[in-house]
Amino acid sequence: MVISLVKQVRKERPLIHNMTNTVVMNFTANGLLAFGGSPIMANAKQEAPDVTRLSQGLLLNIGTLHEDQVQAMILAGKTANEIGIPVVLDPVGAPATTYRSEVCRKILDEVQPTVIKGNAGELAHLVGMEVETKGVDSTGKGDLISIVKEVSEEYGTGAVCTGEKDVGCIEGDVFINETGHPLLGQITGSGCLLGSLLAAGLSVAGDTSDKILATLNYYGQAAERAASRPDVEGPGTFLPRFIDSLAAEVEHAG
Amino acid sequence: MVISLVKQVRKERPLIHNMTNTVVMNFTANGLLAFGGSPIMANAKQEAPDVTRLSQGLLLNIGTLHEDQVQAMILAGKTANEIGIPVVLDPVGAPATTYRSEVCRKILDEVQPTVIKGNAGELAHLVGMEVETKGVDSTGKGDLISIVKEVSEEYGTGAVCTGEKDVGCIEGDVFINETGHPLLGQITGSGCLLGSLLAAGLSVAGDTSDKILATLNYYGQAAERAASRPDVEGPGTFLPRFIDSLAAEVEHAG
Amino acid sequence: MVISLVKQVRKERPLIHNMTNTVVMNFTANGLLAFGGSPIMANAKQEAPDVTRLSQGLLLNIGTLHEDQVQAMILAGKTANEIGIPVVLDPVGAPATTYRSEVCRKILDEVQPTVIKGNAGELAHLVGMEVETKGVDSTGKGDLISIVKEVSEEYGTGAVCTGEKDVGCIEGDVFINETGHPLLGQITGSGCLLGSLLAAGLSVAGDTSDKILATLNYYGQAAERAASRPDVEGPGTFLPRFIDSLAAEVEHAG
Repeated sequence: MVISLVKQVRKERPLIHNMTNTVVMNFTANGLLAFGGSPIMANAKQEAPDVTRLSQGLLLNIGTLHEDQVQAMILAGKTANEIGIPVVLDPVGAPATTYRSEVCRKILDEVQPTVIKGNAGELAHLVGMEVETKGVDSTGKGDLISIVKEVSEEYGTGAVCTGEKDVGCIEGDVFINETGHPLLGQITGSGCLLGSLLAAGLSVAGDTSDKILATLNYYGQAAERAASRPDVEGPGTFLPRFIDSLAAEVEHAG
Repeated sequence: MVISLVKQVRKERPLIHNMTNTVVMNFTANGLLAFGGSPIMANAKQEAPDVTRLSQGLLLNIGTLHEDQVQAMILAGKTANEIGIPVVLDPVGAPATTYRSEVCRKILDEVQPTVIKGNAGELAHLVGMEVETKGVDSTGKGDLISIVKEVSEEYGTGAVCTGEKDVGCIEGDVFINETGHPLLGQITGSGCLLGSLLAAGLSVAGDTSDKILATLNYYGQAAERAASRPDVEGPGTFLPRFIDSLAAEVEHAG
Repeated sequence: MVISLVKQVRKERPLIHNMTNTVVMNFTANGLLAFGGSPIMANAKQEAPDVTRLSQGLLLNIGTLHEDQVQAMILAGKTANEIGIPVVLDPVGAPATTYRSEVCRKILDEVQPTVIKGNAGELAHLVGMEVETKGVDSTGKGDLISIVKEVSEEYGTGAVCTGEKDVGCIEGDVFINETGHPLLGQITGSGCLLGSLLAAGLSVAGDTSDKILATLNYYGQAAERAASRPDVEGPGTFLPRFIDSLAAEVEHAG
């Protein structure tokens, strides 16, 4: 499944409209290109819906919000729903401030995501559960399965909780991905990039939970392969090898 | 010519005002530093013209537009025209949305660029020709020479169409650059960075087409040298070696 | 002192609110993570004070100003003063434009920084002294000690002037750091990242000048170690090794 998904993405080169935070834009674009997608980024409300209309997937990531972008995200999200392309919502730091929390609600009132992905604290927050968080990073443990089940049910969407293990749920079915590497947690935007790859993975034909799981699996495997390289000695040297791993011929993906 | 241009840039260290998209800012700044220029970035209309006034070249790249930036770009572009420094316009994704298309026209109504650079789809769009495009990436073939001739004539400017081969035109003379490497197409912002380097290359004394061609040639050669390194196995490991190549002692540039 | 400071930062993992320029956000986040801090970035006035309230340190860097961000910076800075967390102000390019200069004054009228850090030209400008500058980079020599003394006295703050040697002053005491490497000057944002690390270093218990000096020392040492690696041949390959060095086990810090 992993190999066939990545091959299909590379065949179709889906254009993904990344409405994402300014910290991770470059890394997201390079990572998505490596995976096989084609990135486009546009945040102005004057053009966001038009860009979505050209695209095969939409990512809404609220990591560095500003007022205009919120309006543009809602317009783009509605357009994506209209034309039937997948929408991934990443509620970065939703529990951190009232503003982020309210923006999430507003987006969720107007836009139907295909998948909501976040860490435990972010997802728990969306369903009124509490886990210990620190800034945009979740440090709590909580019951991950119950969190993703609740999110999935309340919002009628797929839910993916990333962490040491990734736990997902869609229509009551729970799935778990165990690939990955601790170095992913030491580079900024590894979760944000995954959101973009999920949008790309979801854009091709196939069963939704299969596509999510294959994308998670490939992503974690790429990290494992990169981390195993002898010249990788920390997060700095991990990053270029990780991009290479994402871009590798899929036969090597194991 | 290539060596003398790069030496001159490194002697003068031209300050280049990069009004560019948020995806590529960091890569552009590092690449321009490596080439020998000095980057400055300012997008607020309150200071953009003042920053241009300090600079030896201006880049206008519309990759992630927002309303305030458009006004600031026009003010900066007019200032650049007034003080007689080169202006490079990169109409990123111009065919993708009505908004981008209109912004391009508005800039071109008010600002005289020294060079317009883009891919085939972007340049063709500016002269009402059609080539197949996908998001911000051009996939069409079209007649590149006729595209750059038309753009150059219609806007009274140099025109550079980047791609497998780079094709340029200024005052009726056509020139072609054949250096480069496919890995450039796998990292985001390689075209955007080139725009900044063109502004730096154009800022020193000399014939315009010579300076453009030398910059294109050096850029492609740097990519070739980087790609040939044994530790480069994909776009991730290519990127740091490419920056090193751009920064290399120019005697090694061949 | 260096080792104990870095160990303490890694134990506490201070959340640092980075209100910084769009050029260096990704590099700042990765560098701060490597040092041992936890980055958060939020520039909207709707949430900036709330994010500051969660944080253990605040960085105000004016490298790519826009109007909304100025208001948000002042709100965040006042909040930081209220709750007693360290504030680092980096007046990037203050002498370059009237707007930047005025924004600096406005921030300094309303916010009490713990440390102002900049290059010679930026600091000199804040106290009405003149040194030769080029864009955001200082090229002048001036009397660094008198500059930091003046800044420290006029604003009742620590002052750090970065350059070949870093010269600092707090409450009349002058200190000098001699670690560092010329490659730091060839990558964009090395000064900006240092501002974020200073906020993290200042957030733990201890004497202010000790903490500043230890942070400067560690930063420069990390650059020296990275530059000495055999595979580092320029600014491109230096960058990943530098992040690794910042992240290294502190026993190796020497």
